[in-house]
Amino acid sequence: MPLSRPSPEPDEPALPASAEKGGAQPLAVAAPAGGEEDSAGGSADALDYPHQRIVFPQGLALDCGVTLAPLTVAYRTYGALNATRSNAVLICHALTGDQYVAETHPITGKPGWWDIMVGPGRPIDTERYFVICANVLGGCMGSSGPKEINPATGAPWGLTFPAVTIRDMVRAQKLLVEHLGIERLFCVIGGSMGGMQVLEWAATYPEHVVAAIPVATGAYHSAQNIAFHEVGRQAIHADPDWMSGEYWRQGVVPARGLAVARMAAHITYLSEEALTRKFGRRLRSGEALTYLDDIFEVESYLRYQGSTFVRRFDANSYLYITRAMDYFDLAAEHGGSLAAAFRRTSARFCVVSFSSDWLFPTATNREVVQALNACAANVSFVEIASDKGHDAFLLDEPDFHATIRGFLAACEAALSRPPRPPRARAG
Amino acid sequence: MPLSRPSPEPDEPALPASAEKGGAQPLAVAAPAGGEEDSAGGSADALDYPHQRIVFPQGLALDCGVTLAPLTVAYRTYGALNATRSNAVLICHALTGDQYVAETHPITGKPGWWDIMVGPGRPIDTERYFVICANVLGGCMGSSGPKEINPATGAPWGLTFPAVTIRDMVRAQKLLVEHLGIERLFCVIGGSMGGMQVLEWAATYPEHVVAAIPVATGAYHSAQNIAFHEVGRQAIHADPDWMSGEYWRQGVVPARGLAVARMAAHITYLSEEALTRKFGRRLRSGEALTYLDDIFEVESYLRYQGSTFVRRFDANSYLYITRAMDYFDLAAEHGGSLAAAFRRTSARFCVVSFSSDWLFPTATNREVVQALNACAANVSFVEIASDKGHDAFLLDEPDFHATIRGFLAACEAALSRPPRPPRARAG
Repeated sequence: MPLSRPSPEPDEPALPASAEKGGAQPLAVAAPAGGEEDSAGGSADALDYPHQRIVFPQGLALDCGVTLAPLTVAYRTYGALNATRSNAVLICHALTGDQYVAETHPITGKPGWWDIMVGPGRPIDTERYFVICANVLGGCMGSSGPKEINPATGAPWGLTFPAVTIRDMVRAQKLLVEHLGIERLFCVIGGSMGGMQVLEWAATYPEHVVAAIPVATGAYHSAQNIAFHEVGRQAIHADPDWMSGEYWRQGVVPARGLAVARMAAHITYLSEEALTRKFGRRLRSGEALTYLDDIFEVESYLRYQGSTFVRRFDANSYLYITRAMDYFDLAAEHGGSLAAAFRRTSARFCVVSFSSDWLFPTATNREVVQALNACAANVSFVEIASDKGHDAFLLDEPDFHATIRGFLAACEAALSRPPRPPRARAG
Repeated sequence: MPLSRPSPEPDEPALPASAEKGGAQPLAVAAPAGGEEDSAGGSADALDYPHQRIVFPQGLALDCGVTLAPLTVAYRTYGALNATRSNAVLICHALTGDQYVAETHPITGKPGWWDIMVGPGRPIDTERYFVICANVLGGCMGSSGPKEINPATGAPWGLTFPAVTIRDMVRAQKLLVEHLGIERLFCVIGGSMGGMQVLEWAATYPEHVVAAIPVATGAYHSAQNIAFHEVGRQAIHADPDWMSGEYWRQGVVPARGLAVARMAAHITYLSEEALTRKFGRRLRSGEALTYLDDIFEVESYLRYQGSTFVRRFDANSYLYITRAMDYFDLAAEHGGSLAAAFRRTSARFCVVSFSSDWLFPTATNREVVQALNACAANVSFVEIASDKGHDAFLLDEPDFHATIRGFLAACEAALSRPPRPPRARAG
């Protein structure tokens, strides 16, 4: 039987030759500090890439009580803002995403993470919309975060960076949006942690969002999701090269710990069906089991996911951002009532879940819909049938793309109609 | 609100005071090499405990082609063998279990792992049955495994220990059972990896098993399960104290890596519902979120699981045994047909699954039932409604216990009836 290769997902290249050497050996990770370039991209210099940014000298008051000043927000835009400034779409990225949505990534050399969704003629059509995406606060692609220099010390923040929340991320985005001269966003859209930000936008800036599309997300992080994040954090902590968060002092990175964290998380992004379809129990060797140096294809795939991730992501950022997700509990921010969070919103919502997503299952997305219904918000809900798991929102899912296209068109049409008087709301 | 404690499962004590110091700090693990004793039990000397064992000088020919000689099998028995030697029940333990089924564990000081199931008057009644349990081949409680001394070198085997399979484990058990003077086992029972051994017994020694009870298991390890194991193995490999498997040379253990492996695996043993019920999003502090040193109860629980595990388990054993589970594919051992594996068995089967088990879901257990049906074997199948996940087989599940009690009684009654002529079998 010929060796059956895993089919690469759109966001992942086929295994490069260099990834095939491992056999049953432990994960060998090229530390970015080594400065090497390879076909998967990434180098030490990558962390110094001159991202497009805006600095807010007055800073931002964070939920933890600290004012972070100055605040830097790295971002990208696509398309043009129209004369009435009514066509802006804010895309919120997920845990390990960034602002390079629809262009070649400057560090990895790969297509943007939502290239399939965003561009001329795509569902989020850059010929119609002015698309904005910012690296989240706490991230590692140019926005203020533990990797950046603390101006007070001249050294990276590391673990002295203040704790951030999803709401803090959204507040930083709001400053950027205002800076771009936009009073009201036509749409805020995002999946996973990006979806948490969408919900937070609708709750915190209810008058500033016309359409909200939270995808594959929830209004809080579950105990199981917190548990998976904690495994990843402990894997990073366990790596001696983490050095209590000050790895930059020694020019090292906790590559092994971060890779293990990524591997554990990556399993949760896929469905059992997707793993079985892609890999099953196939061996890398394609031969019969020898019980010695055999390696299953799924292992090889995970090792590859882990080793490439460490070339583009900062371990301390991973700690901060996973914490922000774990903290997220929109109802708790509003006296324990999720409906209360949405009481003042005038946005139209389109909530999207995927049938095989077990990280943010349909039931979790539906809780958001129920809260929106409870305050008579304008909401539609679609569960997309897919066997691709949580990652489906990043992949080629025609029904999902048609849903986004249709919803945006409907919201645009509604905007162009004369405004209706505000509806009476219960509560 | 008073601090709400997680309710300890029967197999786990409440968090000891020493486990409460961590706060948001990284996992601090007392390495067994330090020789310290604590309330959770375990010390360096624990690894030298004089387990009850039998040595087979002729050794065992393994699936990998190596003959392991001598072979040592550590085991425990409970109850008495009857005059006709027809009341022996072999219990097969799971990945991290051992032979101390129904007595205080000599190293941890905790009750036996299946104390709730095995004992006088319990479903597996030691006043009726002669109960045997052996530490698996490759384990770390006295049976031949990487922790034991290689007589050829006088040093621990470490990674020079040969690869083992589930079938090898069962072959070693067969030698023990013969040594105990038992030709035919009244019952073989086990959950998870123990259930794999039950299936292997029925397939490999079809004339030597009267009743077989595979619980919460499957006839192969799925891609997702392999993936979770691989994360654990990489966490161990990533720990510098693993030292390519020769940690014993330096008197250290890869405690941090093994703890992370255990944490990742432990999530898969519980259900989302169980995690939510036990912990939800409750904080250890019981106070409102400060976004600084907060720690969720579920994190504290996982850290505790990880840190206590390393005091009683060998990291290399973990690598070998997880590999054996990953390799397991009973159909592949029989020309690709699972039904073929069971064609010669005369055993009565009772297959048991738990509704919230996502490691070995009901569908996976049902595949075994379908194969047994396909060869007209005598099989009953019960899905126990439980929200406790995979671990339910270890916990207080009255319906499960009643099922085992009833099935054993029925098999006993059938044994005492005059034998029927063998049924014609298809295939």
